[in-house]
Amino acid sequence: MIEPTSLSLSGERFTATYDFHGDPADARSRAEALCVEQTIEFPADLVPDDDIRNHIIGRIESLEPVGADVTRAIVSYAVETTGFELPQLLNVLWGNSSILPGIRVVDVELAPSLLQRLPGPRFGIAGLRQLLDAPTRPLLATALKPMGSSTLRLAAAAHELALGGIDIIKDDHSLADQEFAPFHERVHVIAAAVRRANELSGHRSVYMPSVNAPYDQLDARVATALDAGAGALLVLPGLTGVDHMRHLAATAGVPIMAHPAFLGSFSSSAHSGIAHRTIYGTIMRLAGADLSVYPNHGGRFSFTPAECRSIVDALAAPLGTLRPAWPAPGGGMTLARVPEMLEFYGRDVTLLIGGDLFRGERLVTTATAFREAVER
Amino acid sequence: MIEPTSLSLSGERFTATYDFHGDPADARSRAEALCVEQTIEFPADLVPDDDIRNHIIGRIESLEPVGADVTRAIVSYAVETTGFELPQLLNVLWGNSSILPGIRVVDVELAPSLLQRLPGPRFGIAGLRQLLDAPTRPLLATALKPMGSSTLRLAAAAHELALGGIDIIKDDHSLADQEFAPFHERVHVIAAAVRRANELSGHRSVYMPSVNAPYDQLDARVATALDAGAGALLVLPGLTGVDHMRHLAATAGVPIMAHPAFLGSFSSSAHSGIAHRTIYGTIMRLAGADLSVYPNHGGRFSFTPAECRSIVDALAAPLGTLRPAWPAPGGGMTLARVPEMLEFYGRDVTLLIGGDLFRGERLVTTATAFREAVER
Repeated sequence: MIEPTSLSLSGERFTATYDFHGDPADARSRAEALCVEQTIEFPADLVPDDDIRNHIIGRIESLEPVGADVTRAIVSYAVETTGFELPQLLNVLWGNSSILPGIRVVDVELAPSLLQRLPGPRFGIAGLRQLLDAPTRPLLATALKPMGSSTLRLAAAAHELALGGIDIIKDDHSLADQEFAPFHERVHVIAAAVRRANELSGHRSVYMPSVNAPYDQLDARVATALDAGAGALLVLPGLTGVDHMRHLAATAGVPIMAHPAFLGSFSSSAHSGIAHRTIYGTIMRLAGADLSVYPNHGGRFSFTPAECRSIVDALAAPLGTLRPAWPAPGGGMTLARVPEMLEFYGRDVTLLIGGDLFRGERLVTTATAFREAVER
Repeated sequence: MIEPTSLSLSGERFTATYDFHGDPADARSRAEALCVEQTIEFPADLVPDDDIRNHIIGRIESLEPVGADVTRAIVSYAVETTGFELPQLLNVLWGNSSILPGIRVVDVELAPSLLQRLPGPRFGIAGLRQLLDAPTRPLLATALKPMGSSTLRLAAAAHELALGGIDIIKDDHSLADQEFAPFHERVHVIAAAVRRANELSGHRSVYMPSVNAPYDQLDARVATALDAGAGALLVLPGLTGVDHMRHLAATAGVPIMAHPAFLGSFSSSAHSGIAHRTIYGTIMRLAGADLSVYPNHGGRFSFTPAECRSIVDALAAPLGTLRPAWPAPGGGMTLARVPEMLEFYGRDVTLLIGGDLFRGERLVTTATAFREAVER
């Protein structure tokens, strides 16, 4: 038994909701184990009746069946366990329990003191509407592809796409610093091409380079991108770390789009991982994404309409003073699907269509058709 | 159709092995889709018979059934697609396909040009043996717990654990910068406590603080830790990004231990994600981990003996000139299990026992018992 500990805690707690898949008879003991695992990771029988036992160990606030073999637990944690930092918040939420079988995070509800330290999207829905001069319509986004293209070809494509009225022209998430189109060269040439197109068209298209880089080059690439006049940044938090995105949202001064590369394993099993709404919705927004990319239902991927809806809801739900963020469904979307997507998503959506715009004589023509389809 | 592209490529390729779960009749088309998804992410019918089609798109090298509903594909990629950087290498390996259903990465085999740029563990098995003056025996590791303890209590524990002969005394991975034991205070006080114990005991115990921090504080925390005399660093690549660990292995000059927090979702489904050997073995080693922590079979978690064995094998397998790394099985291990663990793992293992050392009158006594059990 260790010595009793007395702590000065605020009493403020945040909650996470976990679904335990398996025999309901085991659910309480599994939830109790999770409460220990996510906090003290120490034999509970060695902790006296003190502040660590009563306040630091997670607390089961409710436990109830939500299906034949699913038991839902709401667990609260003292805000102080997070140190008020995002990486440790995620560690308390899902650090070691990610390794336990049959548990899925289905929601997280932060406390005011945590939300104060996570300002979230800098632009959000309204800020991007203002920046892009799009007071009410959906936004249009596309990606510069395919990998292997030269900087000049990508820049020519960007020029046409901007002339056609695409709001956000992003690097494909596969563009890093390959020799085909090196980062430094690419961002300068493409940003200039989009700028010239805007001068001709009167649009406010932005070029959004991808800043997927080694740790020690992240700051330099962001600086290069901003210096070149990039109007937004594409971030891959699954590869560069979720907190890198928070940092960029706080410091870069341009809109941030989160790409789900490498994150799919969190949502790929219905019995474990992190629910779609939480990983692509709440967590991306807490980490400052102005736009969150995910694969739309009916494309190359397997998200259901309900999963897509849950992401949209999480990006827009009340969350302290955090701004709502844009859903950016993509993944094999086509011009033909625009009316149906607008019916599903309404106005507050960024439609992301990549390869399909290359079907046709000229990019400027298909881009214009995309713009007109959205404005109708 | 886009214009044909001519590229100067080396011809060197690396391979990834994917298991496709589901109807074998669909496996080839799914593997072909993956080859496109991981590279050009662009309608393949719009790419002419050029270098992009023939060399940039992933190539199916083999496709064969390995079970009733499992088809294994070996896919090769041009090394140039990675830009010779770890985040983009991981993006090619598993970026978008992480979102596709029923696919699991079961192996990755890098090419010489990639291995040259990823030096891997700085110390590895032999380097840590020399540093810790442990020419042949297994290493001992423990964690300072529980969260909520004061710096002084943690330091007193560290002192006793070092006197008892524990080689690596790490922060529990839940210790970040909470008010209970703030990072700056903690690392200075605990490093000093371990140093004093070494002076008394003649051991070479090292204190290993956890550097789980916001992006913009990572460098400062590492500097503080090294300045305080920390002899090693605990890294949580699932939270701070895999490439941050590579950077530390290249620059910090002390051994690096990888902790699997938040990474468990990659291995939690047998039908998707990344195989244990690859995520806790190969990838951690490529990213420079000298020691890779994972939950041993029979503890609080659910890894099987075969999964543990596969991790050990991947940490030791020939991999260019990369040093072999230490398996560090933990997760509810006890003194009583030491003989069995040594039988399973042999000498090249770091036994990680945390809370169980606190069962007994004094930590120095249980730590000494741990050391003696390992030396026998």
